[in-house]
This record gives sequence, structure tokens and C-alpha cells, in this order.
Amino acid sequence: MFYHVKELQFNARVSKPDPAFATLLLEQFGGANGELKAALQYFTQAFAAKQVHPDKYDLLMDIATEEFSHLEIVGATIQMLLKGVHGDLKNAAEESEIMELLKGKASKEGFIHNAMVNPQFFNLSGGGPTLSDSNGNPWTSAYVTANGDLSVDLRSNIAAESRAKIVYEYLLQHTNDPHVKDTLRFLMTREVAHFQMFQAALETIEPNFPPGVLQSDPKYSNKYFNLSNGEDVRGPWNEGKSPELGETWEYISDPIEHVRKTKGMTEGHKKTSRDPKEVEKMNKELSKKKFEEIKKAMPKGEAQWSKY
Amino acid sequence: MFYHVKELQFNARVSKPDPAFATLLLEQFGGANGELKAALQYFTQAFAAKQVHPDKYDLLMDIATEEFSHLEIVGATIQMLLKGVHGDLKNAAEESEIMELLKGKASKEGFIHNAMVNPQFFNLSGGGPTLSDSNGNPWTSAYVTANGDLSVDLRSNIAAESRAKIVYEYLLQHTNDPHVKDTLRFLMTREVAHFQMFQAALETIEPNFPPGVLQSDPKYSNKYFNLSNGEDVRGPWNEGKSPELGETWEYISDPIEHVRKTKGMTEGHKKTSRDPKEVEKMNKELSKKKFEEIKKAMPKGEAQWSKY
Amino acid sequence: MFYHVKELQFNARVSKPDPAFATLLLEQFGGANGELKAALQYFTQAFAAKQVHPDKYDLLMDIATEEFSHLEIVGATIQMLLKGVHGDLKNAAEESEIMELLKGKASKEGFIHNAMVNPQFFNLSGGGPTLSDSNGNPWTSAYVTANGDLSVDLRSNIAAESRAKIVYEYLLQHTNDPHVKDTLRFLMTREVAHFQMFQAALETIEPNFPPGVLQSDPKYSNKYFNLSNGEDVRGPWNEGKSPELGETWEYISDPIEHVRKTKGMTEGHKKTSRDPKEVEKMNKELSKKKFEEIKKAMPKGEAQWSKY
Amino acid sequence: MFYHVKELQFNARVSKPDPAFATLLLEQFGGANGELKAALQYFTQAFAAKQVHPDKYDLLMDIATEEFSHLEIVGATIQMLLKGVHGDLKNAAEESEIMELLKGKASKEGFIHNAMVNPQFFNLSGGGPTLSDSNGNPWTSAYVTANGDLSVDLRSNIAAESRAKIVYEYLLQHTNDPHVKDTLRFLMTREVAHFQMFQAALETIEPNFPPGVLQSDPKYSNKYFNLSNGEDVRGPWNEGKSPELGETWEYISDPIEHVRKTKGMTEGHKKTSRDPKEVEKMNKELSKKKFEEIKKAMPKGEAQWSKY
Amino acid sequence: MFYHVKELQFNARVSKPDPAFATLLLEQFGGANGELKAALQYFTQAFAAKQVHPDKYDLLMDIATEEFSHLEIVGATIQMLLKGVHGDLKNAAEESEIMELLKGKASKEGFIHNAMVNPQFFNLSGGGPTLSDSNGNPWTSAYVTANGDLSVDLRSNIAAESRAKIVYEYLLQHTNDPHVKDTLRFLMTREVAHFQMFQAALETIEPNFPPGVLQSDPKYSNKYFNLSNGEDVRGPWNEGKSPELGETWEYISDPIEHVRKTKGMTEGHKKTSRDPKEVEKMNKELSKKKFEEIKKAMPKGEAQWSKY
Amino acid sequence: MFYHVKELQFNARVSKPDPAFATLLLEQFGGANGELKAALQYFTQAFAAKQVHPDKYDLLMDIATEEFSHLEIVGATIQMLLKGVHGDLKNAAEESEIMELLKGKASKEGFIHNAMVNPQFFNLSGGGPTLSDSNGNPWTSAYVTANGDLSVDLRSNIAAESRAKIVYEYLLQHTNDPHVKDTLRFLMTREVAHFQMFQAALETIEPNFPPGVLQSDPKYSNKYFNLSNGEDVRGPWNEGKSPELGETWEYISDPIEHVRKTKGMTEGHKKTSRDPKEVEKMNKELSKKKFEEIKKAMPKGEAQWSKY
Repeated sequence: MFYHVKELQFNARVSKPDPAFATLLLEQFGGANGELKAALQYFTQAFAAKQVHPDKYDLLMDIATEEFSHLEIVGATIQMLLKGVHGDLKNAAEESEIMELLKGKASKEGFIHNAMVNPQFFNLSGGGPTLSDSNGNPWTSAYVTANGDLSVDLRSNIAAESRAKIVYEYLLQHTNDPHVKDTLRFLMTREVAHFQMFQAALETIEPNFPPGVLQSDPKYSNKYFNLSNGEDVRGPWNEGKSPELGETWEYISDPIEHVRKTKGMTEGHKKTSRDPKEVEKMNKELSKKKFEEIKKAMPKGEAQWSKY
Repeated sequence: MFYHVKELQFNARVSKPDPAFATLLLEQFGGANGELKAALQYFTQAFAAKQVHPDKYDLLMDIATEEFSHLEIVGATIQMLLKGVHGDLKNAAEESEIMELLKGKASKEGFIHNAMVNPQFFNLSGGGPTLSDSNGNPWTSAYVTANGDLSVDLRSNIAAESRAKIVYEYLLQHTNDPHVKDTLRFLMTREVAHFQMFQAALETIEPNFPPGVLQSDPKYSNKYFNLSNGEDVRGPWNEGKSPELGETWEYISDPIEHVRKTKGMTEGHKKTSRDPKEVEKMNKELSKKKFEEIKKAMPKGEAQWSKY
Repeated sequence: MFYHVKELQFNARVSKPDPAFATLLLEQFGGANGELKAALQYFTQAFAAKQVHPDKYDLLMDIATEEFSHLEIVGATIQMLLKGVHGDLKNAAEESEIMELLKGKASKEGFIHNAMVNPQFFNLSGGGPTLSDSNGNPWTSAYVTANGDLSVDLRSNIAAESRAKIVYEYLLQHTNDPHVKDTLRFLMTREVAHFQMFQAALETIEPNFPPGVLQSDPKYSNKYFNLSNGEDVRGPWNEGKSPELGETWEYISDPIEHVRKTKGMTEGHKKTSRDPKEVEKMNKELSKKKFEEIKKAMPKGEAQWSKY
Repeated sequence: MFYHVKELQFNARVSKPDPAFATLLLEQFGGANGELKAALQYFTQAFAAKQVHPDKYDLLMDIATEEFSHLEIVGATIQMLLKGVHGDLKNAAEESEIMELLKGKASKEGFIHNAMVNPQFFNLSGGGPTLSDSNGNPWTSAYVTANGDLSVDLRSNIAAESRAKIVYEYLLQHTNDPHVKDTLRFLMTREVAHFQMFQAALETIEPNFPPGVLQSDPKYSNKYFNLSNGEDVRGPWNEGKSPELGETWEYISDPIEHVRKTKGMTEGHKKTSRDPKEVEKMNKELSKKKFEEIKKAMPKGEAQWSKY
Repeated sequence: MFYHVKELQFNARVSKPDPAFATLLLEQFGGANGELKAALQYFTQAFAAKQVHPDKYDLLMDIATEEFSHLEIVGATIQMLLKGVHGDLKNAAEESEIMELLKGKASKEGFIHNAMVNPQFFNLSGGGPTLSDSNGNPWTSAYVTANGDLSVDLRSNIAAESRAKIVYEYLLQHTNDPHVKDTLRFLMTREVAHFQMFQAALETIEPNFPPGVLQSDPKYSNKYFNLSNGEDVRGPWNEGKSPELGETWEYISDPIEHVRKTKGMTEGHKKTSRDPKEVEKMNKELSKKKFEEIKKAMPKGEAQWSKY
Repeated sequence: MFYHVKELQFNARVSKPDPAFATLLLEQFGGANGELKAALQYFTQAFAAKQVHPDKYDLLMDIATEEFSHLEIVGATIQMLLKGVHGDLKNAAEESEIMELLKGKASKEGFIHNAMVNPQFFNLSGGGPTLSDSNGNPWTSAYVTANGDLSVDLRSNIAAESRAKIVYEYLLQHTNDPHVKDTLRFLMTREVAHFQMFQAALETIEPNFPPGVLQSDPKYSNKYFNLSNGEDVRGPWNEGKSPELGETWEYISDPIEHVRKTKGMTEGHKKTSRDPKEVEKMNKELSKKKFEEIKKAMPKGEAQWSKY
């Protein structure tokens, strides 16, 4: 169950209205790497973790709930950056002579010009945040990934936090408002903190590479295909040993010829340091281990979520 | 700020796995009228209400938070309905002889057949809920409406609760599991309760018709265009008086001729009971009233959200 | 069958080109609350109503057809607001010396600058309307709701008309063109008229609350969960009687404690004024009544739509 | 202005319910090549044509209106194919003993199984058509193309009619219902008729190749890049003369070498039969002609759509 | 298998940065008629053609591969038009006194103002291209059509090339950069070349009208419904003979009356020049021919793609 | 420039048709973690890397090109799994007596039943792959992330490869076809190989934490908010030292109280091991370093992409 307190987690303030920056900031409200995406990603991942990995469930729900709280901070900031729009739109009977005097023709044109910054703040939301990104695209759960495997999900989260961090870094360069900068710095810092939490959690899973259960096939795991020709570069990603499996990279400098010669990779495999039998054994053992872990954790018969 | 407790608001239970019903139930997890839509709709509407209508802000955040809690109940139920899928997928090294014996060829085909019910439970989410509807469409904020005017937003919410209610009613007919039925009845009932809360709130706004500030133009407000020909019907929607403005409906039985004769509705207007001058006056007064209401509520200078 | 006459329902005119306002106006052409959404929503709802509720079918098709006619008015207005763009784009061989003279470098930059208002008017549609909203999002049927129950659909329509009305109200504040204002006022007024038609139709359905067939469960129907803490407010939505069912609201001020104490709402229910047996009886009776209404209306055997 | 008569353009009938085929048929209701797409594509294209090409405007609006009428036919057929679903869902109080007897457990399971064919017919639309394709994807205006140039738009329409035709051809193979087959054959035939209307209209535009105003550059217009290696084929698309410009195709059998040798196509151009100066002249003349055509057709000053 | 060389097919250059034109140019990078759409459309169509029509497979893959190469040219041009943005964003610690001096307050505001042109270049992509159109809509495969019939697919491609051509024509008018104009002219010309290649290929298919296998029904194939009333026009699309089937057009000037009189087109058909028996025969023959063509081309048993 | 050879990188074969598995496999053709997403993600990221990090550009383009080659393998496999569908659909004139005999009524129903597996294979694509996921959702570039910072992009890629790997692992459990299993194992293994390439590349960037330029703020970087109550867990993610910055985690067990006491985190900060001045200095240095790296790499004046 969720619960809400009206105080924000961070004391967000705004010096003066700025509809242009409000538009940019939408990226973190309803954008692909924004707070809603983060909140719903961790929340959705948590369901599969609940019974088998209650420690990771706790972590995911702690951070999901913080992200919902950040979503609120971002929304509140956008609302404050739009101060005035909401009221102006209520002042709708602008044909009246009095209003004409108050607003003036020039200011009217300024008002209209302003609207082009983000039309929907002015003709749709009535001066409030919209669940879209800074280009006006509606938020979609296509942004969310939850794959039922913690060694995958935690890596997705580390990457998600990286992207959220860089977006705050970019946003910081587009405002001069010291209050807004304080808020952005708080939010950016929390992404760095979450990154480390997910990394620490990933490190407690043994083994965590490759993600999932099945090992990679030694016939294809150490090959580097040089498929982009001209100015080819050698580096630790195609010479020396691969960082996780420790196999020696095999650099295939002419992939077209190689594929033809090996009849589509079905012949002429070179040995790597991993023994196919060992790989097969590992597949079976890990498979069994993970399956029994789950079987043990799942109660027989009727299922219940809470512990009343 | 949000807060989470691990107990569900309702003690959701499931008698036995049922991937088919889990698929149907996705409609209320990530569908157009589901819990996520409700939660995010009220949450988004709340921002514009915060300072001018703190009572409605409280109402919107109370219900938004309950809808997040319902989203959790629905997700937990889907997870429990998928019991077994998660574990089976971890048992990945199925080439092993032992596994072959355990699963058998027949059960393998059953497993594959099952997967067609909702492919993504089996090849993507690893046996957990996905933020999509029962047809697999990703959730989109295109479902959410927040228009910065409570007389509009509350009506949107009454309609949203109506739709959520009927979807639960339909879902109740597709499961025999008594526990799941209990949960669906709880959730369906809450939609009915929320409906009434929003209606009670709407009634405290005076006037609340027409929604917004501007009155309708008496030149066009009482006309009924009979644009679908054959078996025409007369009813209180095109004869007698209109329910809110009390104008007598004018039934235009031959709209094409009418439009030609009135040069596109620019000539030959009949009088209604509303005086155009009164309408104009009302526009100005309401406009002024709403504008000043907001101006008064908004603090000068720097804006701050919380009350520390 | 549909039929078209080349005259518009309203004599839309435009004083001078204004690509910026054309962009804003797209919100009512291809936006979430625009004319296309309205037209297709009522049209889609009409299919299920056709045989059982021919009076509502007539109403829905009358208004759907009017909304298609409004869509045409909005599109025509956008086209007129873009006057000049279409021609300029055909004048494509601008390297010619003559053209250079006519347009000049300055005007060229003005032309390019203009294009940023809505790039797709200039590089895609060739100066005509696009089926998108004012932010350029393509129209999607995710905006449309049709749920096969008139007590739901009519409420969806009342809300839809409310939103369409407020968008016209907002748009009216962003143009000074008297002709365009006339058109917007006509269109805004028609939304108010439709609102009342749908409301009158809803009132002829008895009972119409709760929407659909099934009653709400008295165990949960009168509870108000105070889930947003700080500055809590009491109002007719959480004290006194609920507006439709007339049950006394039960205010749960500490929902976390309440849920724990009632083991997830499964114990300790307080009585409301509605008798569970009466509720059960009503479910059965209404269910039977609606089912037979439909059975009677549907011809046996082969189905045919028209009455030739 | 649109107008509607309750008779269908074609007397659509259905022998017996078939939810599976109703699902397939959605492809032509709310799918990428369906009737809604066709109707809205021609309708949207018509706006730019209205004043400069009133003959093509008439053609586009005639066919657009027919496509709306076809949309209605398809929707009516889906509704008839779903006969029974609507009523069953209203029979909601299935706990009653009587209902238990009537439906039986077996039929209940059949009912649930049925629902998996298209979940949203059963848990969302209440047994009516939905504006989506046969996979449940919501209709999007991303399907619609309108580019403000008739030599482009008419070709888009010829292609659109081709796709609609083949989808009806595929659908005809998935039903045995003779009435439904009659309807599909009528609709398929109309696509073939429309195809020819658009082609006839295209042929009245002189010149119509290349589409638009600007000519292609003789430096690059006759080159064929053999970019997919292995089993290369020569045919009239890369040897002999190009069908519209009559230039001799230049077959570049080794594109990588060619690009390197010509420094990215900036050097070593071979002559084609078209003279660059003639091309330039044609650009200017056509540009001027089209521009003046439009200028002449557009009234000065205020714009008005109808001819009252 | 694909292969990449680092040289571009065309030597794209840019004279100076221009974020506004970079935004417009996105239309051809990630837009509905852009290079990605073209590449993926031909690539997807190619799969079904591979075994039955290896000559068309070669054509489709040659052009698909060229379109991928054009996508690269467009992306490179956008990247060069954004020169400076990428670096500026890395200069993130703008609080430093030195940076304050270098940038200055004025330039900062210019920077922010610039960002409104396309927010996501500045707060998301870090100054690189995004896979979206000029309005920021993400690319969707809803743009791609592949219908498993070459007489349909090739017509879709002719239309697609027409649209791509006109978009380049429009874009050419929004930049003054001679290098960028050269690139656009190259790309525009290639669309004209591809158009002719697809047309030449279509002409090798016999018969190719109507697209697909089934003939149109002579009962409905020559009728023109005059459904848009007022200023009706007669032209080769509704008088004389239809261009492909050579039937005499039947102009139905009052469609409502016609439909009523023919009981929804089920009675009173006039003869056309095509004999229904001949049509039936043609259906069977063509059906058989196409089926056997495929059967012969498909190897029995196991399927393999490559020819090792 | 791209280049294509008709041989596949891997010799994909299929034992017998299986439309159900073809549907599941779509997840890797047009799904969120599929080959198209991978190819376009690395391709898009490469543009910003080209001039400043040519080594990473080479890596990104090598792998992007391989992913395009994998997309082809997956599409070819789907096509082979659908063998027969394409031909059957051409056999369209099924009314003929001969066809009736050949197909039979029973097989016809089997054919129709089959179609429900994935309607669009049968009524839209004509038996070829569609650019959608296994639920039929069209591919969208919302799946692609490219943020103009290699320390971010490479982490996105590591996560993307993890997700692609697990999807292949899940898919392997839904087919018994040994050829298809071979292909899936090859593709799964390549994801593991790419994962390590991206990781090796990330490790060559110094520093790479936090991603981007700006450091996190020591006031908020070590706090863990215990926002999900009940069964709280302590682990390396909230006790001991954070894995990257080495700060001691501060566990805030009652976040509501903490926020109130610190006035929204603006007061009472505890010191961490990082000195704010050092952080500030690092921000400036890194900012300057990265900016100059880019400035140096970017040629003055005109920009050109290729090295002719």
C-alpha cells in the first residue's frame, strides 16, 4: 500500500516563472529517462522478486517509492515555473474593455508567442505539467524494462540511472535560477546514489555473468567481426582477453570471407579456453539451482501476497 | 513524498495459476481504464489544484494514492496467477536428460501452447506483469486527461471511474476463482465509491456548468441537427428543455437546407430564453472572479511548494 | 451511409494567415479532445447501441455526424490560416535570379524561422492540416472510449464534451482574428449543447447508477481512505452521506493501521445502510432484465443491419 | 458538412456469430490499410486541393465519403459477428443458481477460452468493434499521408488502394460465411474501382513525373548501385533505359570502389541524355507555373471556404 | 550479411552549424517518409520475395542497402549541423568564474533560447541525431508496409519514393548552405531513380492489375458514387472508360436513392463489359498459377536460406 | 556506406514450419530488446562519437553492422518458419471445386484457427515477418537510447545486451527444432560477446564514474531512504561503503521524520568523506578537459564526414 505526505522530499523552490525551462524539464517528468520511468520500472520489476528475493524486493520498492517522490518534485517545479499561466487562462473574457486595457495588445502578442514554446501548456493542460517529454511525446511503458531476472534488471537499472544522471547534467546548463539548480543537483545526486545501490546489489548475486542461466557457446563467444571498414582500431575489446570470460579475442578482419569459408559459422571452429563439457555442466547445475531456489520460496497451494 | 508499506490494502489471494485470466486482468494494470491511468490522472491534475483549491488537492491525492495501492493489488494478483512460469523459465537447460524426463515432450508442447496466450509473459517478462493492456499495447499517457479546470477534471474522473467499474464487471465474468472474485469486487466497489467522491466535490463548485469560464452563445446553444436520417427519434435530448440551461430545443430536421438558408448559421437566428447581454456579463464576472481567486491564492515572488 | 455537401455547417472565415495559431488549433483537429476523437467515439459507440437502443443510436449518429462536420470546419480554418505556405513551397526553384529578387535573403530567413513553429506544415504537409495535435503527436484511437454500456458511454461523452469545451475556451484567448473567434465560439457552444443532449439521454436510463449492472459491495462502498497526510480536509466527499447511494461516509484517518487491523479489509466490516441481500437481489434482477432486453431486441438467425 | 442515412451502402449480413473472424476483420476497421485510414487520408488531402484543384477536391471528397460508408459496413459486420457477446456480458450476476444452470461450468470455460481470441471484445468494448487492427494496436494517423502535392498524393492513394485490396483478398480466405464473403467482395471491388479513379486523375496532371516541381539531377539519376552481392540480376530496372526519363541505366557493379574513386560522387560524372541547362530551365518554368496557378486561385484578403 | 565502409556514398559537407535546419532535416532521418522507413520497408519486403522472385529480391536488397547508406548521410549531416552543441554540453561546470566570462550572460540566454528549437538535441541526445521526425515523434514501424505481394509492394514503394522526393524538395527551400543543398539534391535525385527502378520491376509482372490474385466483381467495379454534393465535376475518373479494366464508368448522381432502390446494391445490377464467368475463370487460373509458382520454388523438407 | 552479401552470417535452417514459434521469435525481430533496436541504437550513438572518439566509433559501427546481420538471420528464420503460408494465400480462388477437394473443410478450419496465433501473418504480411514484437506492437525508436556521452551509452549497451541475452534464453525453451536452437544459441552467444566488448570499452574511459562530467553532491550522495516499510533489509546497498565513491551509507529509517526535520533536506547535513571543494574542483577540471578534447578534435570551419 502507498501513502503520501504533502511535504516534498526536497524543498523545491522557484525564483520566477520560466515556461521555456518548464518545457525542457518535462523530459524528467514524462520522458524516456525521467522519474516516472524509473519509478514504474523498479515497481514492475519488484513483483517477480517479491517471494524469491525479498531483500532485492525491499531495495526495489525503496527506490521506486523515492522515484515517485522525485516525480512529485519535478511536477511541482514545473507547476511553479508556469506560475501565472493558470490564472491568465481563467481570465477568459478578454473582449471586455477593462481587460483590453490591463493586458494591452502588445502583451497579448507576447502571450501568444509564449504559447509556441509548448502549445499544450496553454491550450490543453491549463498551465500544469503534462505526462510527456520535452518534445510533447506522451509517456509510454515502452520505456520500462522488467525481465524477471535480477542480473538483467539490475543492469537495466544501472544504465537507466546513468541516463537520468546525464539528462540532469544537461538540464543544469539551461537555467540560471539558483533554486531550480539546487533541486536539479539534489535529483542528479540521487541518481548517482541509486546507481551504486543497484551495483552493490548486483555484486551480491553469484554468478552474475552472463546474465540469466545459460552460458555462452565457446564456438562463437570470443570472435570479433571487423564489419566496419576503414580506420580499423584494435583495443581491449578485440585484442587480448575478454573481460568476463577471459577468452582470447579472435579478430576476424575479413568477415565476409570468414563466413563463406566456415559455411556460415558451422565449420572450422577454433578452440577457446572454455571446455564445452564444462559449459554444459554449468548450464545444468545453474539451471537446477535457480529452479529449486524458486520452488522452495513459493508456497504450495493457494497464493497470498501479504503476511496478515 | 510517497511512502510504501508492504501489506496490500486488500488481502489479495489466488487459488491456482491461470495465465489466461492474468492476461485479461492486464487490462486493469496497464490498460486505458486501469489503475495506473487513474493514479496518474488524479496525481497530474493535483498540481494545478494545489494552491488555489487545497481541499480538492487533498481529495485528488488521497484517491491517487489509493489507486497506486490498487495498481499494486492488481500486479500482485497477476504475479500469483502466473505462479510456476517464473520458475519454469529458470529451468533453462532443458536438453539435459533429467529435465527431459521431468517435463516430457507432451508437457513441453503444452508449455509452448500456453505461451501463445500472452507471448510476453513467456519470452520477455519472465513470468511477471507487464505495463500493458490485455492486447499487449504499452501503457501511454494519452489515456490521461488533466485540463487545469476542476469542473472539467472532476467530470473526466467520474467518467474514468465509470469505465473502470464496467471493466471490473466484465472481468468478474471470466474467472471462477473465489479469491480473485473477492479482490475484483473490492476493486470494483472502490470505483463506485470514488465516483461519488468526485461527484460530491463537483457539486461544491458553483457554478459548474458550463465547465470552465465562458458561457455558450445563445445563437447556437439550443439547436439539434438531425444529421442521421431514417428512424429519427424525438426524446428529451431534442425536444422540451435542455437540462442545464433550460432553453427549448430547436429541432432542425433538414440540416442541409437550414445551413444553406442561414448562410452557414450566420443569419436568421431565433431567440432563446437567454439574453446575449446577460451572457456577456456573466462571462466578465466569472472571468474576473476566477482570476482573482487564483491571484489571491498565489504568493508573490519566489514560489515554494512545501510548508517547512 | 455517409453523404457530404461542400458547404460548411458554419461559415468559417479567416482575416489573414497565422501559422502559429494554425498550430495551436491542430489541438482540435487531431488532438486528444478534438473533433476527430469526438466523431469517432460516438460513431464507435453507436454500433453496440443500434439494435437494443435505437433511440440512443440515432442520438449518437446525429452527433457523430455533426462532429465530422466540425472536423471539416477546423481543417478548413487551419488551411486558410496557412494561406501562402502552399504556394511558396511550389515556388521551388529558388536559385533563379528572379526569385532571389522577389523573396530576398531576409524574407528567406523569415520563411525558415517561420517553419520552426510547426516544421511539418513546411516540410511534410505542404501547407495543409495534419492529423496531429498541437505538439505534433499523431492522432491515436487510444483517445476513444466505447465500452458497450450506455450508462458508461454517455458519461464518457459528457466528460469528453467538457474537455473539448475548455480547449476552445483556451484557444479563444490566443487569437485576435474576429472571424476565427466567431468560428471558435460556434464550436465551443456546440460542445455545451452536446453535453446537455448526452445528459438528457443518460437521465432516461433507469437505474443509471452505478454504471453497468452489478451493485457495489456494502463492505467497502462507504470508506474514505485518508492516504495523503498533512492539511487533511473534510468535505461532502468524506463526511455526511454519499451522493448516490446515500450511505454515511466512513473516514479512515489512519489507513495503514486500519488495513493491518482488518487483515487487508477482510475482517471487522461496519454495516452500511444497504442490506447485502438486497444488493444481491438487485444484481440478479438487473442482470436478468438487461439480458432479456437484449435477447428480445436481437433477431434470431441471420443478422442484417439495414431495413431494406 | 456531412450527412448520414441509416441504410448501409451495401446490404451487409452475417449468417452466424464468429468472434475469431471478427478479430481478423478489425484489420480493415482500425488497421493500417483499413477503411478509416482511407477515409481520413483522402479527407485530409482534400483541404489543400480545395481552391486550386476543385475537380480533384470533388474526387477526393467523393471517395473519402464512400470510405467512411465502408468503415460503417465493416463495423456493422463485426458487430453482427459478435452477436451474443454483448448480451452475455450484461448477464453479469452469474453467481445466481439459475444462471449457473443455464450457462454451466463447461460453457463458462468455453466463454473464457473464447475471450482469448481478442480479450478486448470481452473485457473492454462489451462486444462491439474497437478502433484497432487485428493485433489490437490502436489506429494512428501515422498511417495517413497527405503531402500537399497531387502528383504525390494520388500515387499514395493508388498504393493505399492496392494494399486494401490485398487485405480483403487475404480475408476472403478465412471465412466460409457466404454473406460475409459477399460483403468482402463488394468492398474489395470498390478498392479496385478507386485505384482506377486515382490513376485516371493522375494522368490528367501534366507533367506528373517526377512528382512535385523539381527535376532530378542528371549527375545521379541513372545510376544503379549493386549493393547486395551474390546472385546479382540484370533487368529493366538496371539495364536499358529508365522508364520515365529514358536515360540509359549505368550499372555500378562495385559501388565501394566507385564511391572512393569519385570522392563520394563529386567527381567523374558521366553524361546522361538530359542536358543540365534544360533541367534548370524546366525547374524554373514549372516552379513559376505552379506558383502562379495557386496565386491565381487564391482570393486576395479574407479567406472564406463556402460559397454562400 | 551487412558490411560497412566508413566513407559516405555521397561526400556530405556542411558550411556552418544550423540547429534549426538540423531539426527540419530529422524528417528524413526518423520521419514517416525518411530514409529509415525506406530502408526497412524494402528490407522487410525482401524476405517473402527471396525464394520465389530472386530477381526482385536482389533489387529490393540493393535499394534497401542504398537507403541505409542514405540514412547515414542524413545522420552525418545533422551531426555536422549541430557542431558545437556536443562540446558546449560537456562544458558543464558553468558556475566557474572563467566559464562565466567566456560564455557571458547574454550568450547563455541565446543558448537556452536555441534549445527551444528542438529540446531533445540539448537535454537528451547531447547534440546528436535522434530517431524521430522533425516534430520529435519517435520512428515507428507503422510507417512500413510489406504485404507479401510484389504487385502491391512495388506500388507501395513507388508511392514511398514520391513522398520522399517531395520532402527533399520542400527541405531544399529551407537552407542556404550550398553544401547541404548539394547533398539534398543528390538524395532527392536518388528517390527519382528508385521510383523508376520499382516501376520497371512492376512492369515485368504479368498481369499486375488488379494487384494480387482475385479479379474485381463486375457488379460493382465501374460505379462512381457522387457522395460529395455541390460543384460536382465530371472527368476521366467518372466518365468514359476506366483506365485499367476499360469498363464504362457508371455515374451514380444520387447515391442515397440508388442504394435504397437496389436494396443495398443487391439488386438491379447493370452489365459491364466483363463477363462474370470469365472473371471466375481468371480467378481460378491465376490462383493456380501463382500457387504453383511458389510450390515449385520452395524446396521440400528442411529450409535453408544461404547457398553454402 | 553499407554493403550487403546474400549469405547469412550464420547458416540458419528450419526443420519444419511453426507459425506459433515464428510469432514468439518476432520479439527479437521488432521487439524492445531485439536486433533492430540493437543495430539502430549503436548506429545512432556512433554519430556523436565519430570525430572525438574514432576508436569507439569503429567499435559501435562494427557491432551495429553485426546486429543488422542478426536482424536478417532472425527475419530469415521467421520466413522459413512460415513456409506454406505465403503460397496458401496466393491460392485465393478457393471456391473452385478442385480447391475444395484439396483443402477440405476441416483443413480450412485448421487454417483459420492457425490465423489466430498471429492474425497479421495471415491477413496483412502475406506470410512474412512484420516489424513488430511478439504481441504485434510496431517497433518504435522509443526503445533506442543515445545520449551523447560514452560513459552513459556504453552502460546502456551493456544493459541492452543483457536483456537481449535473456530473451534468447527464454526463446530457447519454446522450440524443439534443433536447427532453430542452433541459431538461437549463436545469437545468444553473440550478445554475451558484445556485452564484454562494451565493458572493455567502458573501462578504457577514465574516469567513468559518475557517468558524464559533473560529480554528485556530498550532501545527498550517501543517503538511503527506507521508504518501503515492513521486512526491511540491510545489505551492501545500504550499509558499509558505497561501491564507487566509498562513502559510508547513511540509512534513514524514518524518511518522513527526516525530511520534516531537515526542512526538505536543506538543513542538518552530515559530512561524508568527500570534500565539497574537491568536488567543485573536479567538476571544473573534468569539464574543461572534456570540452577541450572535443574542441581539438573538431576541425575549424566547414565540416566534412569522409576522408576523401
